[in-house]
Amino acid sequence: MASLIEPKVLKGFRDFLPSAEIARRNLTEQIEASFRSFGFVPIDTPALEYADILLGKGGGETEKQIYRFRDNGGRDVALRFDLTVPFARFVALHQGEITFPFKRYHIAKVWRGENTQRGRYREFTQCDFDIIGSDSAASDFEILLMIRSTLLGLGMDVRIRINHRGLFNRFLSHIGAGEKSVEVLRAVDKLARAGEEETGKNLAGLAGDSCAQKILDFIGAGGGNAGKTFEETLDRITALSGGPSPESERLGMLRRFMFDAGVEDSFSLDPSITRGLDYYTGVVFETFLTELPGIGSICSGGRYDDLAGLYSKNRISGVGSSIGLDRMLAAMESLGRGPAAASYAAVAIACVKQEHSGFYQALAAKFRQAGIPCEVFPEDAGGNLVKQFVIAEKKGLRRIIIPGENHPDDPLTLRDLKIRQNREGLSFSQALEACRAAHG
Amino acid sequence: MASLIEPKVLKGFRDFLPSAEIARRNLTEQIEASFRSFGFVPIDTPALEYADILLGKGGGETEKQIYRFRDNGGRDVALRFDLTVPFARFVALHQGEITFPFKRYHIAKVWRGENTQRGRYREFTQCDFDIIGSDSAASDFEILLMIRSTLLGLGMDVRIRINHRGLFNRFLSHIGAGEKSVEVLRAVDKLARAGEEETGKNLAGLAGDSCAQKILDFIGAGGGNAGKTFEETLDRITALSGGPSPESERLGMLRRFMFDAGVEDSFSLDPSITRGLDYYTGVVFETFLTELPGIGSICSGGRYDDLAGLYSKNRISGVGSSIGLDRMLAAMESLGRGPAAASYAAVAIACVKQEHSGFYQALAAKFRQAGIPCEVFPEDAGGNLVKQFVIAEKKGLRRIIIPGENHPDDPLTLRDLKIRQNREGLSFSQALEACRAAHG
Repeated sequence: MASLIEPKVLKGFRDFLPSAEIARRNLTEQIEASFRSFGFVPIDTPALEYADILLGKGGGETEKQIYRFRDNGGRDVALRFDLTVPFARFVALHQGEITFPFKRYHIAKVWRGENTQRGRYREFTQCDFDIIGSDSAASDFEILLMIRSTLLGLGMDVRIRINHRGLFNRFLSHIGAGEKSVEVLRAVDKLARAGEEETGKNLAGLAGDSCAQKILDFIGAGGGNAGKTFEETLDRITALSGGPSPESERLGMLRRFMFDAGVEDSFSLDPSITRGLDYYTGVVFETFLTELPGIGSICSGGRYDDLAGLYSKNRISGVGSSIGLDRMLAAMESLGRGPAAASYAAVAIACVKQEHSGFYQALAAKFRQAGIPCEVFPEDAGGNLVKQFVIAEKKGLRRIIIPGENHPDDPLTLRDLKIRQNREGLSFSQALEACRAAHG
Repeated sequence: MASLIEPKVLKGFRDFLPSAEIARRNLTEQIEASFRSFGFVPIDTPALEYADILLGKGGGETEKQIYRFRDNGGRDVALRFDLTVPFARFVALHQGEITFPFKRYHIAKVWRGENTQRGRYREFTQCDFDIIGSDSAASDFEILLMIRSTLLGLGMDVRIRINHRGLFNRFLSHIGAGEKSVEVLRAVDKLARAGEEETGKNLAGLAGDSCAQKILDFIGAGGGNAGKTFEETLDRITALSGGPSPESERLGMLRRFMFDAGVEDSFSLDPSITRGLDYYTGVVFETFLTELPGIGSICSGGRYDDLAGLYSKNRISGVGSSIGLDRMLAAMESLGRGPAAASYAAVAIACVKQEHSGFYQALAAKFRQAGIPCEVFPEDAGGNLVKQFVIAEKKGLRRIIIPGENHPDDPLTLRDLKIRQNREGLSFSQALEACRAAHG
């Protein structure tokens, strides 16, 4: 006999057993249903692309983490490490075929050879959504509203903290620190992790003590923002940035939309939100679960003014965001949400005698036609149904139908596996009614 | 300005624009709903695995086609080229966590560096489903029934042609050609492509003229099977293989199940079906669309008695199959089936004045809550709504709601973009009713 190959998966990669996969599916299917209800449409792109396209200007962390190799034809290729770069390439390539404003979502796997000691995975699913080809405040607002609506639909109360990078930059110019904008925004982005003292030192190193103090004041360090309304904070940062501007007006317009749509309570204005990426130019935001603020933002994003500049001379602006699915799943688990069933079936048909399997399937078909998913057991009970009860329980099923032993058309018995009780002598309609009440 | 990177995809790889992606989703979602109604559950496995696990005994075509490389840690890794090998590895690794009989499906991408001149893709989606840990005829039957039910649910009438490899082998032993079984089954598998004359020559070369003639007779070459019922063919091949056997009884049992479930008309017994793979040991089958038999089998499979032998000393048997999604999509397109919409939305709210966007979203939320997907346009019409009508039509939308210009709570106008007519003065309820009638 040949020696066995040890079955194992690569470090940082995961198998999904049915209960884990069903939990993931439940989450993504609910998210997709919400996106679709807003008229967003899905796209897909290849897992493998030319390496120079994915790396763009290249260099840095990305290059070290990417799965890159030569294919059998000698091409320099790589697995996508996010969905943003492929989207930019996609839009540049298909701009003539796309109807703008284009509202798209993309839920797909990406691969990064990250250090798994930080608890990160090397294969994980991203969930991106964007509106491109529209500069309007209405588009900013729709992305914010869709985040709120999607997460509320998942039973998660959220607070979305927004800011405007353009307004932050206007303030930096106003205090004479405009040249250090990129570095300052990155330093502020690390505030939550680094703490105020460390951030203050970093800012002083970048822009001098006086500017550092003004920046800390602007972002509301030391509790300067605590208890302030959106409007009070907007007035304050508008004044600090030299008075009304298109950026402060954009924030005001968004605030008006929030009131008109009756969703103002879910949003706050937080001048310390900057997002690290250079990419963003307008509104930026982070989303926190009110029950679990400590896990960090589960949905972040913002407005950018040049999506596909590496691949096209047309400037395409947009606003978009990404939901952290792994973080969401962990949150739902720690909140005890989300069904952990190992089956989609609501009921099973016991296999009393295997020779009746044709009738059992005909019976199951009637349940399925009535909208009740129904599993049929394939192995003869041999006079002892207990084994089938145990299997059904392991699969997370609550109910099992036991057909008659001699005549498959005899009345049915419905066993409740939890309370271990049988209801005997049921017609199909009565059994269906009982299952429907339980399934509904 | 930096030079642009040309946006392009690798040969054999595809972008999916919304209309193509929505068509794919519609298909896979309907297939999944059917699988779930039978109590089948999804799993997932990594795209990337150790190369020695994927290649198993290795060699041959697979090794030439596989995307294989060294990762940053020096590991010999490869992209999966099918879902069967990862499933075998998965079952060997998790056999202690799985509840048997295990009914699983897996819909996911696989990668093969095939010659694209044959019109094949290098990245494509497979859709596999199996019942493992059960030897029963009831399991064979359930797979056959699920194929029939799933494809009928897609509006496709099918004929499923089945055979039993064990019975074929029994026949070969009976005529003294048992040693050449693997080669003979492969030669017969090529019958449809190679033709009878060529197949006859191949068989004569393998087993001699006399055996070749008996084999051609067994498989019904020269129309020997035409007009015969399942029962007549079963009687004939039972006799040719030396009389009743467990294999002929299995086919008889399946036939009984078909009658008991009232599905007998969808199946025929075709002794020329062998499937090329060594892997199969029991029932084998191919599925043909009655409207498009010429495109070949769109769903094939069979029973095997040792799924995970490369990775585990436990013999795990099962029965399974795979739907060819690309072939199905092509078939549905050529039959004019399957909606080709570029949107999930049923209606759009026009943006008469951008400053009313908060109200528009509140209006859209009422449609969404009523189950009507509703898109909101984000760009101010500037007094001319024609541009928005054009965009809505391009997205495949039939209806657009036009709110009042001055007061967002004014009565609504519903425009039918196809017949270019407006219905004015509608309340929300009236507009909803009109959209619901059209959407339902």
